[in-house]
Amino acid sequence: MNEPRLIAVDWGTSSFRLWVLDRDARVISESRGGDGMLFAAREGFGNVLLRHLNAAKAPADQPILICGMAGARSGWAEAGYVETPAELSAISQGAISAPGIKRDIRILPGLCQRTAGRPDVMRGEETQLLGAAAAITERALVCMPGTHSKWVTVDEGRVEGFSTYMTGELYDAITKHTILAAPDKTVGEGADSASFKDAVRAAFAQPGRVTSQLFAARSGQLLNGATPAAALAHISGTLIGAEIGGATGSDNRHKIRLVASGSMRALYESALTTVGIAHESIDADDAVRKGLATAASEIWS
Amino acid sequence: MNEPRLIAVDWGTSSFRLWVLDRDARVISESRGGDGMLFAAREGFGNVLLRHLNAAKAPADQPILICGMAGARSGWAEAGYVETPAELSAISQGAISAPGIKRDIRILPGLCQRTAGRPDVMRGEETQLLGAAAAITERALVCMPGTHSKWVTVDEGRVEGFSTYMTGELYDAITKHTILAAPDKTVGEGADSASFKDAVRAAFAQPGRVTSQLFAARSGQLLNGATPAAALAHISGTLIGAEIGGATGSDNRHKIRLVASGSMRALYESALTTVGIAHESIDADDAVRKGLATAASEIWS
Repeated sequence: MNEPRLIAVDWGTSSFRLWVLDRDARVISESRGGDGMLFAAREGFGNVLLRHLNAAKAPADQPILICGMAGARSGWAEAGYVETPAELSAISQGAISAPGIKRDIRILPGLCQRTAGRPDVMRGEETQLLGAAAAITERALVCMPGTHSKWVTVDEGRVEGFSTYMTGELYDAITKHTILAAPDKTVGEGADSASFKDAVRAAFAQPGRVTSQLFAARSGQLLNGATPAAALAHISGTLIGAEIGGATGSDNRHKIRLVASGSMRALYESALTTVGIAHESIDADDAVRKGLATAASEIWS
Repeated sequence: MNEPRLIAVDWGTSSFRLWVLDRDARVISESRGGDGMLFAAREGFGNVLLRHLNAAKAPADQPILICGMAGARSGWAEAGYVETPAELSAISQGAISAPGIKRDIRILPGLCQRTAGRPDVMRGEETQLLGAAAAITERALVCMPGTHSKWVTVDEGRVEGFSTYMTGELYDAITKHTILAAPDKTVGEGADSASFKDAVRAAFAQPGRVTSQLFAARSGQLLNGATPAAALAHISGTLIGAEIGGATGSDNRHKIRLVASGSMRALYESALTTVGIAHESIDADDAVRKGLATAASEIWS
């Protein structure tokens, strides 16, 4: 194990992850929690950070680099946006210093797109992208699924443009707050189920019918005796299939790079395979750590 | 004013409307309330009905005909579904008697579609359709907007098929339970605003990008200083534009019949005009009363 060289933090809306990394971006120790931006805005960002530094036994003499919602207007300090099209190397140049703590702490900016009619923003994913970019040598469409899935066109370290799909958040709102809400503690059928794959296939073929196909989750229960678990898989497959259909459009000849981990990775790998789109997976946790390490080497070079 | 001949009831999920009608389906008196199926399931359907009969001073010797969610499995008594394709005249044949009250009370069934991959149901709209059908002489695509918008293909009194779009309910869930939620009491810009029309146009052109275009409600506020009221109009326009795009598809040459009232009618008329689709409006309240009167004349002939 090498010496610690960087404290890397991915600070999301509702999650916090801190890693002590060595010079090769390998993990020496870590600390995770649910104290994301929403929580930290009440308790104080500095306090939350100090608690995790202690929990990870982080050294006091190494710099700290943060990406994600800590840099939002309602976060710790506003880190602004780098405007696309942009070189990924511009991200580290936009870093700002965090106030209130006597340590060298920087927060990375997000990316924004001001194209008329398609304004868009991201915060955190640009750092994943920076970490994943080393493995992407040709022009590529990168999918980063989640609460707000990002689809990014990257070419030789340059971000050309991107689109956000509200897939994860719509899934939550629909399955909690509409007639499609499932009974408490129902777990949806998985990425390999016919309910999921059939919904992916149908929504991919006709993404314009997504708000109609969702309702079949209810009709299928009323008419065909579909289970609540199958209905959840139908909703998930519908939203993911429509996302893939909308994002790839006519431009689906090149291979997709999927930056994801865990169950999200399983769902999107199954969905892409179901509709016959070639893809290659890059671990999302790995990518964000590599991105933070890359940006750190540019900031403190 | 003629003698009362029918007590007509439209019993929705969260609303109740009762009219005392004469032989020409003109309104003699009425009573309305928020005691729809969800409320009545707790208080008792008979009790709710009796209260409204009193409020409208309804005669005791006339029959009562009900359409809507009172006939759902979780309603007063299950009235089942007539399966499409179906003649509209089959609706009255599927009426059942309501239990527990010594009066002649009938509940109309809904419509269902068992087409593989596109299961769908409606309850209440089939009666609006029956009432509107007299004004529809050629093959037509009928749009009945609402919480769950219905698009129905009708030809000479025969329902060929239909699709539900969850437009109204998604609007509620998105504007209350996601990052796009507006501050309390914000009222969205209206059907004539540029925010609404631009969103309709963009979503109609690319309905497959609907779950992405929604997010621009947020990006537009962060990047372009769009107001919360404009964001609400953007969300509404996006969902309605995608609905129209998905429902008309390649089949948008014939005129749309829009069965709607009030603000819903204004939104859809503006949206259809914005994307250049010819349409003719039929008042929804009128249509449901006429539909109940038509069915009554078939039941009690």
